[in-house]
Amino acid sequence: MIEKQTNKLKILNDPIYGFITIPNALIYDLIEHPYFQRLRRVSQMGLSYLVYPGAHHTRFHHAIGSMYLMQNAIRILRFKGVEISLDEENAVYIAILLHDIGHGPFSHALEKSIVTGVTHESISLKFMVALNEEFKGKLALAITIFKDEYHRKFLHQLIASQLDMDRLDYLKRDSFYTGVAEGNINSERILTMLNVKDDTLMVEEKGIYSVEKFIVARRLMYWQAYLHKAGLGAEKLMEKVLVRANELTLKGVELPASKAFKYFLKNQINEDNFTNETLKTFSRLDDYDVFSSIKEWISNDDFILSTLSENLINRKLPKVKLQSQPLSLTQINKVKNKVKTSLNLSDNEVDYFVYSGEIFNQAYDSTKNNIQILYKNGKIKDITEASDHLNIQALSKPVYKYYFCYPKK
Amino acid sequence: MIEKQTNKLKILNDPIYGFITIPNALIYDLIEHPYFQRLRRVSQMGLSYLVYPGAHHTRFHHAIGSMYLMQNAIRILRFKGVEISLDEENAVYIAILLHDIGHGPFSHALEKSIVTGVTHESISLKFMVALNEEFKGKLALAITIFKDEYHRKFLHQLIASQLDMDRLDYLKRDSFYTGVAEGNINSERILTMLNVKDDTLMVEEKGIYSVEKFIVARRLMYWQAYLHKAGLGAEKLMEKVLVRANELTLKGVELPASKAFKYFLKNQINEDNFTNETLKTFSRLDDYDVFSSIKEWISNDDFILSTLSENLINRKLPKVKLQSQPLSLTQINKVKNKVKTSLNLSDNEVDYFVYSGEIFNQAYDSTKNNIQILYKNGKIKDITEASDHLNIQALSKPVYKYYFCYPKK
Amino acid sequence: MIEKQTNKLKILNDPIYGFITIPNALIYDLIEHPYFQRLRRVSQMGLSYLVYPGAHHTRFHHAIGSMYLMQNAIRILRFKGVEISLDEENAVYIAILLHDIGHGPFSHALEKSIVTGVTHESISLKFMVALNEEFKGKLALAITIFKDEYHRKFLHQLIASQLDMDRLDYLKRDSFYTGVAEGNINSERILTMLNVKDDTLMVEEKGIYSVEKFIVARRLMYWQAYLHKAGLGAEKLMEKVLVRANELTLKGVELPASKAFKYFLKNQINEDNFTNETLKTFSRLDDYDVFSSIKEWISNDDFILSTLSENLINRKLPKVKLQSQPLSLTQINKVKNKVKTSLNLSDNEVDYFVYSGEIFNQAYDSTKNNIQILYKNGKIKDITEASDHLNIQALSKPVYKYYFCYPKK
Amino acid sequence: MIEKQTNKLKILNDPIYGFITIPNALIYDLIEHPYFQRLRRVSQMGLSYLVYPGAHHTRFHHAIGSMYLMQNAIRILRFKGVEISLDEENAVYIAILLHDIGHGPFSHALEKSIVTGVTHESISLKFMVALNEEFKGKLALAITIFKDEYHRKFLHQLIASQLDMDRLDYLKRDSFYTGVAEGNINSERILTMLNVKDDTLMVEEKGIYSVEKFIVARRLMYWQAYLHKAGLGAEKLMEKVLVRANELTLKGVELPASKAFKYFLKNQINEDNFTNETLKTFSRLDDYDVFSSIKEWISNDDFILSTLSENLINRKLPKVKLQSQPLSLTQINKVKNKVKTSLNLSDNEVDYFVYSGEIFNQAYDSTKNNIQILYKNGKIKDITEASDHLNIQALSKPVYKYYFCYPKK
Repeated sequence: MIEKQTNKLKILNDPIYGFITIPNALIYDLIEHPYFQRLRRVSQMGLSYLVYPGAHHTRFHHAIGSMYLMQNAIRILRFKGVEISLDEENAVYIAILLHDIGHGPFSHALEKSIVTGVTHESISLKFMVALNEEFKGKLALAITIFKDEYHRKFLHQLIASQLDMDRLDYLKRDSFYTGVAEGNINSERILTMLNVKDDTLMVEEKGIYSVEKFIVARRLMYWQAYLHKAGLGAEKLMEKVLVRANELTLKGVELPASKAFKYFLKNQINEDNFTNETLKTFSRLDDYDVFSSIKEWISNDDFILSTLSENLINRKLPKVKLQSQPLSLTQINKVKNKVKTSLNLSDNEVDYFVYSGEIFNQAYDSTKNNIQILYKNGKIKDITEASDHLNIQALSKPVYKYYFCYPKK
Repeated sequence: MIEKQTNKLKILNDPIYGFITIPNALIYDLIEHPYFQRLRRVSQMGLSYLVYPGAHHTRFHHAIGSMYLMQNAIRILRFKGVEISLDEENAVYIAILLHDIGHGPFSHALEKSIVTGVTHESISLKFMVALNEEFKGKLALAITIFKDEYHRKFLHQLIASQLDMDRLDYLKRDSFYTGVAEGNINSERILTMLNVKDDTLMVEEKGIYSVEKFIVARRLMYWQAYLHKAGLGAEKLMEKVLVRANELTLKGVELPASKAFKYFLKNQINEDNFTNETLKTFSRLDDYDVFSSIKEWISNDDFILSTLSENLINRKLPKVKLQSQPLSLTQINKVKNKVKTSLNLSDNEVDYFVYSGEIFNQAYDSTKNNIQILYKNGKIKDITEASDHLNIQALSKPVYKYYFCYPKK
Repeated sequence: MIEKQTNKLKILNDPIYGFITIPNALIYDLIEHPYFQRLRRVSQMGLSYLVYPGAHHTRFHHAIGSMYLMQNAIRILRFKGVEISLDEENAVYIAILLHDIGHGPFSHALEKSIVTGVTHESISLKFMVALNEEFKGKLALAITIFKDEYHRKFLHQLIASQLDMDRLDYLKRDSFYTGVAEGNINSERILTMLNVKDDTLMVEEKGIYSVEKFIVARRLMYWQAYLHKAGLGAEKLMEKVLVRANELTLKGVELPASKAFKYFLKNQINEDNFTNETLKTFSRLDDYDVFSSIKEWISNDDFILSTLSENLINRKLPKVKLQSQPLSLTQINKVKNKVKTSLNLSDNEVDYFVYSGEIFNQAYDSTKNNIQILYKNGKIKDITEASDHLNIQALSKPVYKYYFCYPKK
Repeated sequence: MIEKQTNKLKILNDPIYGFITIPNALIYDLIEHPYFQRLRRVSQMGLSYLVYPGAHHTRFHHAIGSMYLMQNAIRILRFKGVEISLDEENAVYIAILLHDIGHGPFSHALEKSIVTGVTHESISLKFMVALNEEFKGKLALAITIFKDEYHRKFLHQLIASQLDMDRLDYLKRDSFYTGVAEGNINSERILTMLNVKDDTLMVEEKGIYSVEKFIVARRLMYWQAYLHKAGLGAEKLMEKVLVRANELTLKGVELPASKAFKYFLKNQINEDNFTNETLKTFSRLDDYDVFSSIKEWISNDDFILSTLSENLINRKLPKVKLQSQPLSLTQINKVKNKVKTSLNLSDNEVDYFVYSGEIFNQAYDSTKNNIQILYKNGKIKDITEASDHLNIQALSKPVYKYYFCYPKK
């Protein structure tokens, strides 16, 4: 709820943090801008609500929450004597608010199916540049920091690192809305432990156990929520729907869809052909375009498109096997042949129903942007060395799992 | 998350109650039915998320939560010696699960604009009857109880009364997701106080203060959340969009919309012409149909439709005055004239931009289905008499407020 | 946990508010002073833990929590343009921290039995004066505000009024530790609604429903927690123990007790004979003195003292009747006679086992220090007029109840 | 709050779990017994409240909470088809309720100072045997299970193992009351994952990440709460007070103390001379005896006793160094000499003010009673093997730290 009190205090209700204050008029105008309001219509966790019915929170809410944590981080760092100018403060608020503005429908669905040539980070930057023009250069420092071109590295690290405000908010928020209580982290306590030395973000010595628990919670959320078997099946199913729709469109079939959605179904967008018009069109694209189209496609003539669409809408999710070793080709082909026969499909077509792949998660990456522990005596250690017995080095090995999807009988 | 454990225990994660167990296979099949899955795509609080960014929870989640409270109520009543048969138990689970299945997009948007001839309660019943046929009569007792035609009244009262599982869940849930913490009620404690005498639901003596607080919380949620000024403006704006779209469609204009949505824009549905086909079509209609259409209408030729649609999508909400007395016609006309001139509108057209009306709330209705207090000595009193000094009688007077909406400059 | 971070940030963990920061060195020194540390050994809710096993929180914790709310109140008022000097800020922190420092063992046990001649408010002031001397006048403004002799009335109102930081903390804290969830209030939201006009504390218009709910929660906590039947029985039992011990001591019996406790058992202290030595002795008196003595008295020769002591320690609480009308003398005497015979007691002695009295609660007092509502147009109304239908006027009538205690068989 | 509802449902309010139901009359009578009521006067976390002001919860509350978790565990295991008789059920409730009844004042203070010859586990058993006699053999099966002499091992494992109800409650409860939110564990979820195979307690495959997080939380609570530097200092200070008092008493000095406390100061109790009278005396000993005596000792003639006592009561805690290597004797002696001179102490006496030692924690012990993971295919693995990358093996190495305490200037 954005309310003005004596025209000064604008506050929003947040079920997690209580009240969030909008720090100034520029931030308020950015939040009210249609580019940012679009995030209200982009699900933060994609289709995870098919598994965790509470997980309907949006990119909008996460971006605002990250900004709230940033406000606390700035306050705490200043309290500890770290000098941060008003311009720098304002810039990190803007940068964290807009860091994910480039996410498309269901956060990742398009990136993995029909807009594979551009990352969401790249689109976020394009939005910032466009807004900077509209707001007459007021976002310039935010962009510099976002691109990590500013000399005070810790400001970028607050936005993008292994302990940034983004992660501190989304782990807490996703844990809250899914009800996976073990993923809950004490963001407030971790913030209290932050410090800066040589313009680099550090965690004070006494924060070691909190960081450990943060990394373990992140790992748990990956396997229990983000990469949950049924949720993974839903996500892959949607990708298959989108790939099929793309394929049919490129063959000349006219599918019902919004204008914005048609634009991306027809044009294979990549970094080179991403124009201002592309950005404008992208800014009108959200979950509603994609899901309402899929609902219409249920009655489409194409058997594959209609079947997959109906499965997604009515939650007839594929059966998913998830294991530490890939299935053998023999096993996969056995299932493929069975499905080909029963559904009367060609070799190409069966790949829409039976497919496999790999997923991976790395709870902590020890090769770049390490979390640094600052000791009272001024010494600095990487968290993997500082933690006495919990082998964070071990946690830094990527974990691979292999999925195999096929229709339930 | 619906997971099977040794094929027996199916549980769902709920951020509010922790874990919810699906009691049996029939309930499981009803939940998996497309009619019920549709509720995943119907916002519980309509457009309130434009004011409270956390309020994206759905009718699906609320229905499951109400069933959870029902499971606890049955357990507690049995513990107190109230005999409830397995058939009765199962019937109230089904009835509470399906009590709101007739809600359309955004819960109330259609009822107040283009499908004004049928209530959502009536549509809920039609769905139950259809499901009863599909499930070969297994919902018969649930329907009898839902219609209040069963001799043991308390079973109906658990589903629909001033202290039913519906209210106990939605107040708690809406308070949770909006972050309006004062609306939080202790549903668990109130359940512990329930009892049955002469087949009528009662609250034990010691529960008086909890009931008082429940009524005050309900009142607070109405004025602070459900009828929040800005949320009311958003809701009224959407009604205006839908009324305009309906008007244009009936004039023969072909607006982009899903097939299901077009059906309701073109046909004026009421109790008399509500066929099986109508129900099937309704079952495919949800927030996505409505919102994606409104997004497309932004680029429509009709000035009114496109302007209102753009205002809704980009959250340019009308200015709302809310007061205890209606505005005078003179005041209203003054604003209408100003807007007519500035937007170049006719007398009829200006009503899409400037309008007024009344809302009301009655925290407790003392004229029907009163909450009964059961004393240790066996005596029974109405809560309005039992509560010593908090004048619940006073709370039972309907409160009227008058709104007036007009465009922000 | 009081920890120093880079010697600047001293924080304490609070289960309710998260982290509490000690604002400056003077406050830190006051907290570390033995006078204040004593509050760690004084139960906030007396013997209520015999009914609510979680309610073991102390006066120490409550005082710190009230100071935390005061810090937020000051920040919010300044944000709204209310000018508050650094000296005033510091003074209200001190005043709220020390407002209850005069509470004796179990908060109220002595006041109602053996130190009836001096109120705890009066003793609080004596402590402040003593500390002011020790800290060389640095508490002078705090004392002026505490005594309501400062020209800016709202500063006193933040410490002592119907919506002060004391109440906002204790209702929330007592609700939290007892688990009586309905008593929970949204202190944070209420603070957000505070404002000051003409140096008087006000609640902004939109806070009306929150204030209503605050008053209803207060009423509920009184009847459900503070005046809970079994808790009341425990409290009265302890008073009887103390009165008997006092009586025996004055007769010359030497009871085992700490030196400090003996001082108060032997001397009938009132305002006139309360010396510096009295204050020093009082500062050494806490729950441990009283409870460990009562444990020793179980093996005392006096039948009444030993029986009552054993009953209290082993939670053999009296039977308590609580009703809206006093019992008739005939009824009371009937029970007295029975107990006299069965325990072989004299007329005077039976009053230690069978007794009656009245308790009362007034959720809101409309006769003094009313809560003022400030409207956007600058008008001011008393909350009893502002609240549309919840008859707060009705809530302002004192509610009397009558208890009658006698031994369980 | 223990209340009877229609004489059947006895419930207690718990701030953590909501409501706890007392399952039957025998359990109710055990809870009301003075032996069990004594636990209301024994602090669960010793003196930790000097560091975490919220941590005033008691052994009483923890025992009741553990029983609540046991009720849930039994319900879940039965739901999964594990057969548990009514007698077995009742026995594990009794066993978990009484498992810690042998704890003395401040939970561990005596064990480490003046009653070093008997463990609290041994005293718990003595209490159970005494109660079994009083309740005519009704505790026999509980005792058999407690002693791990029953053939169905999982019943003992629910009471005492690396994933027992004791740990699941105390970690959650201590985290709650201290406010160290990272120590919070999802006991409810872990219970949902329990199963039994071959009469051995198992965790189902999907519970691996929850168990990991449980172990990491336990480790964190040790270093951040139980072995917190300042808390450790307070605990050691109290041990020194008790050792000194013991020493003086054995020399013939008559110190003020309760009868029960004097008994243990005068007699060196061990397994061999622990009589029925010892048990009875122990049953009268709690925090109040110890703390009220220490308060009196502040004015004792013995310089060491009075100084240490005053330091403890007024929270003048020793300075504590905590590090991964022991301090050298040279360093220690340097400080000792300084303190000897400044306080004018002999060689023996200085050890009361300057001392060192080691503490250790083992988050998971892989050598006995391992946590077993049960796979869907029926295979079983130790958690150290099952966890893919979090090296639980590493966590199972004991961590040693070395403390060094000396007076603050």
